[in-house]
Amino acid sequence: MSVRIGGATIALENAVSLSAFAAVGGKKEGEGPYGGFYDYIDADDYFGQSSFELAESAMQGLAFQNAVEKRGVEPKDLSMIIGGDLLDQCIGTSFGVRDFSVPFFGIYGACSTISEGISLGSLLTDSGASKLCAAITSSHFCTAERQYRFPLEYGGQRTPTSQWTATASGAVIIEKGEAPPFVRAVTVGTIVDKGVTDANNMGAAMAPAAYSTIKRFFDDTGFSPENFDAIVTGDLGNVGSRLLCELFERDGVSLREKHLDCGRMIFDQNAQDVHAGGSGCGCAASMLCGYFLPEIKAGRMKNILFAATGALLSPTSSQQGMSIPGIAHLAWISSDRPQNR
Amino acid sequence: MSVRIGGATIALENAVSLSAFAAVGGKKEGEGPYGGFYDYIDADDYFGQSSFELAESAMQGLAFQNAVEKRGVEPKDLSMIIGGDLLDQCIGTSFGVRDFSVPFFGIYGACSTISEGISLGSLLTDSGASKLCAAITSSHFCTAERQYRFPLEYGGQRTPTSQWTATASGAVIIEKGEAPPFVRAVTVGTIVDKGVTDANNMGAAMAPAAYSTIKRFFDDTGFSPENFDAIVTGDLGNVGSRLLCELFERDGVSLREKHLDCGRMIFDQNAQDVHAGGSGCGCAASMLCGYFLPEIKAGRMKNILFAATGALLSPTSSQQGMSIPGIAHLAWISSDRPQNR
Repeated sequence: MSVRIGGATIALENAVSLSAFAAVGGKKEGEGPYGGFYDYIDADDYFGQSSFELAESAMQGLAFQNAVEKRGVEPKDLSMIIGGDLLDQCIGTSFGVRDFSVPFFGIYGACSTISEGISLGSLLTDSGASKLCAAITSSHFCTAERQYRFPLEYGGQRTPTSQWTATASGAVIIEKGEAPPFVRAVTVGTIVDKGVTDANNMGAAMAPAAYSTIKRFFDDTGFSPENFDAIVTGDLGNVGSRLLCELFERDGVSLREKHLDCGRMIFDQNAQDVHAGGSGCGCAASMLCGYFLPEIKAGRMKNILFAATGALLSPTSSQQGMSIPGIAHLAWISSDRPQNR
Repeated sequence: MSVRIGGATIALENAVSLSAFAAVGGKKEGEGPYGGFYDYIDADDYFGQSSFELAESAMQGLAFQNAVEKRGVEPKDLSMIIGGDLLDQCIGTSFGVRDFSVPFFGIYGACSTISEGISLGSLLTDSGASKLCAAITSSHFCTAERQYRFPLEYGGQRTPTSQWTATASGAVIIEKGEAPPFVRAVTVGTIVDKGVTDANNMGAAMAPAAYSTIKRFFDDTGFSPENFDAIVTGDLGNVGSRLLCELFERDGVSLREKHLDCGRMIFDQNAQDVHAGGSGCGCAASMLCGYFLPEIKAGRMKNILFAATGALLSPTSSQQGMSIPGIAHLAWISSDRPQNR
């Protein structure tokens, strides 16, 4: 039974455990500072497939299979999969999970997808609607570039504020259980649109949404940044991260010491030419599954807020001159189960 | 607290009520046999906007506002909106709900979206995670044609098996309550792909998914078609509806007497030239909100199974020669609340 503890925050009553997780990445991600944390790195980003789109689906299937194997179950044991991705009509996920024949809820939250999936999966687990489910997502540099921007062959120039879509996938298994990490509460994101129209500056478009959701969690719970080891955003990158901290500073809240952004972490910003940082559904998902969840499991971190952020634009909306709506869903992930609070 | 009663079916314990609902449609839908059941029909399908995409968002906003007003609340009173649509990156919904500032879960289930939204919304309501939420979706003939097929100006010929995307939207308010209709159980759909590659024959691609989900509900619950006033599918059209009944006939189950398909109902197939029927997220959603839910509320129907079906293809997957994965989510909607069972 879930408990609404404020405007948009829902506390879980049961011990909802992220019992297994896996991260899969491409070549560039493998060469990044967290390359060693991935369960599998593909040598050429094709994952043995003939198109980038099929490669993305294969990558997502791999992450899912890895997580399921770590948990010691079969796909058929799952109550449901909750997932989505950046591709038109979410084909990365539809084709990625198709052959597992597991009940499936498709979601769309752009780069906030892994937060949204964990939120929904945790709520459905808490209530008994799901016994054992998976939240998954992915992004692929080559599918995203040609869909959102230019064909790779065109060799378009990137602006300084642009971010590099990670070729990566993350999968999490969610169930009631006694092993950390636990999901303690979720804050459902609200769409925030401050009028940014530059599709090459998604960090700026998403930062106000991250601010809105994280602030709402603090308002709803009474917690503050000091209560957490880290406040993790998905892919604000350099520009969006600075904006987020500035927005909190206006409230007299210092986020800087606790804020980490997966988009700033996933690539080496000196050695790897990614401009404002990494992005994509797979960026936050793979950093969560490859780095943060293992840290919590090992007891090196106790409490984090994980707020992946999504830019809900499409090439059509941008070409029609529309601004970029942002959203951020948040999960409080902890090494302690509810009654130990 | 939800109860899993079988492989993919979850029964709701509480009286989860679809307490208000609204349907909005375009000109052609208004001229169809159920035109009088819509809350609002737009004269030119532009809904006062300058692009078809903005028109779709405005239409969805209208359906939402209508439902919220009927319920006698304000958007700010809602715990969350759950919605999605057919457009790339679901911009119909993102821009449609953006200005209401309500916590938002974006979903993608193609034309199964309204079933998926009602399923998730009902489960989250049953558990207390949501107090008052809305499930919404939309489709627009002109946005869908140019995105999935050809620019309207091209005047492409339609094949006999093709369906006409409805310009329509439906919105449902979900909460615990004592007034029918009630959602009694949901069956989460599994992706089914029988290898159909003809993007102009979505009925054939989706029929096996509808069969899979409806059969699963019967297997999980022990019910049969006789227990229901109607077994309603979303937009299988003429071809898919015939296939669905044939698939059940192989099992010795006669569905024909109870089967209704929104895609076959929404347009007059003699007077309106729609080939194999209507389709689109808004087809099932508006027929549900405009016709079926009022029928149950008025006591003229007691129990229906509502299974909207989605074709999880994209133009890219079709152009790459991939087959069309289908999915169907099911909700058992009843005039009786759980304990009266």
